[in-house]
Amino acid sequence: MEQIAKIAVFGTGPVGRSLAGKLSQLGYQVMVGTRDAQATLARSEPDSSGDPPFSVWRTQYPGIKLGSFSEAAAFGSLIVNATAGIGSIEALKSAGEKNLSQKIIIDISNPLDFSRGMPPSLSVCNTDSLGEEIQRTFPDAKVVKTLNTINSSLMVAPNQLSAGNHTLFMSGNDEDAKSTVKGLLESFGWKDIIDLGDITTARGTEMLLPIWIRLWGTLGSPLFSFKVVR
Amino acid sequence: MEQIAKIAVFGTGPVGRSLAGKLSQLGYQVMVGTRDAQATLARSEPDSSGDPPFSVWRTQYPGIKLGSFSEAAAFGSLIVNATAGIGSIEALKSAGEKNLSQKIIIDISNPLDFSRGMPPSLSVCNTDSLGEEIQRTFPDAKVVKTLNTINSSLMVAPNQLSAGNHTLFMSGNDEDAKSTVKGLLESFGWKDIIDLGDITTARGTEMLLPIWIRLWGTLGSPLFSFKVVR
Repeated sequence: MEQIAKIAVFGTGPVGRSLAGKLSQLGYQVMVGTRDAQATLARSEPDSSGDPPFSVWRTQYPGIKLGSFSEAAAFGSLIVNATAGIGSIEALKSAGEKNLSQKIIIDISNPLDFSRGMPPSLSVCNTDSLGEEIQRTFPDAKVVKTLNTINSSLMVAPNQLSAGNHTLFMSGNDEDAKSTVKGLLESFGWKDIIDLGDITTARGTEMLLPIWIRLWGTLGSPLFSFKVVR
Repeated sequence: MEQIAKIAVFGTGPVGRSLAGKLSQLGYQVMVGTRDAQATLARSEPDSSGDPPFSVWRTQYPGIKLGSFSEAAAFGSLIVNATAGIGSIEALKSAGEKNLSQKIIIDISNPLDFSRGMPPSLSVCNTDSLGEEIQRTFPDAKVVKTLNTINSSLMVAPNQLSAGNHTLFMSGNDEDAKSTVKGLLESFGWKDIIDLGDITTARGTEMLLPIWIRLWGTLGSPLFSFKVVR
């Protein structure tokens, strides 16, 4: 199991903030990666989700650095992809292949396509997945798909629901990488982590999104999770 | 809520047998529908799943009738579609549209496509579903999609797992039909039934199949179910 000290978190939205904040609290050195750091810092209005601007959020975590995707990837020995699925491949490409080589990429993104209205469909599914696309595009990286089936606040605090008695899924080709990621997830409080197998099993977790979105509507809250009862 | 006495169950495989057997035990009059009743009864070898031939299975349930899809649909005031997804539209068409008109169709089928090997992919998903296809093909019927996310033995005996503390999903356009079906499901022992909304929400439950199939492999048993923890 690899010893990780520095982590890059790609994405400044709710998922990126949730992961960056928790990792910083746990003592990791964290750099958030974004397309244009100056533009991100210059924003003074709430973002499209109504969350405070990044610069305001970051005042809670003065240790967290901000840089370009390339700077963040060069900084981190592990990369968390918390960008919107539609832009994930481009964000990772702009990080530079050499900055990702041999590193673990924790891929939380989902290939949600909002272009045809609500509810979103998936831009890739069934015989392929975004997790596989990322692994194919960066064959020297070690992609571990996980955390993509739950709300951003539950990702890093599973105990707020049913004392943590619900299930997290994990997919990836590299056993050592999955072991490292599992350790990290356990430090967030996850107790029931199911390793589904290689990265092709990411199809299954990404295809949970359509029912996840409908359940959000039906239950009126995103604070739910799946438990595999067995 | 409609009073149902006679039920048609389409399909002679594990799902059809499970439903027909349970409904018969509960006191309903049941006719199983199949493409060719004579051929079904003539078989004396175990089927492709290794289950005993239909004629042997039926000795446990002497009250259960067997007929063509058309005969069964004419007999039942509610139809259970437990055929393989790949043949469901054809089976329902051969039943005759007038025999389905105004009736509830409980659709348990999944659009699994084994033609490209294992694991199967889905023949329809993402922006459509088999449940919707059936509803579009038979606009006068009341399609309720349910039970398609669990193993056949759990469908009618949810209490064998975690005292029944797991979740069943339901989709359909007709509120009265869903209310009737909910009553039937509760008589099987289901306690946590989530109505996801109209028939388009069947996309979500059918798209659970890819992770279901991988979990079957990982857990080594099909006796598991999803609980929506909230």
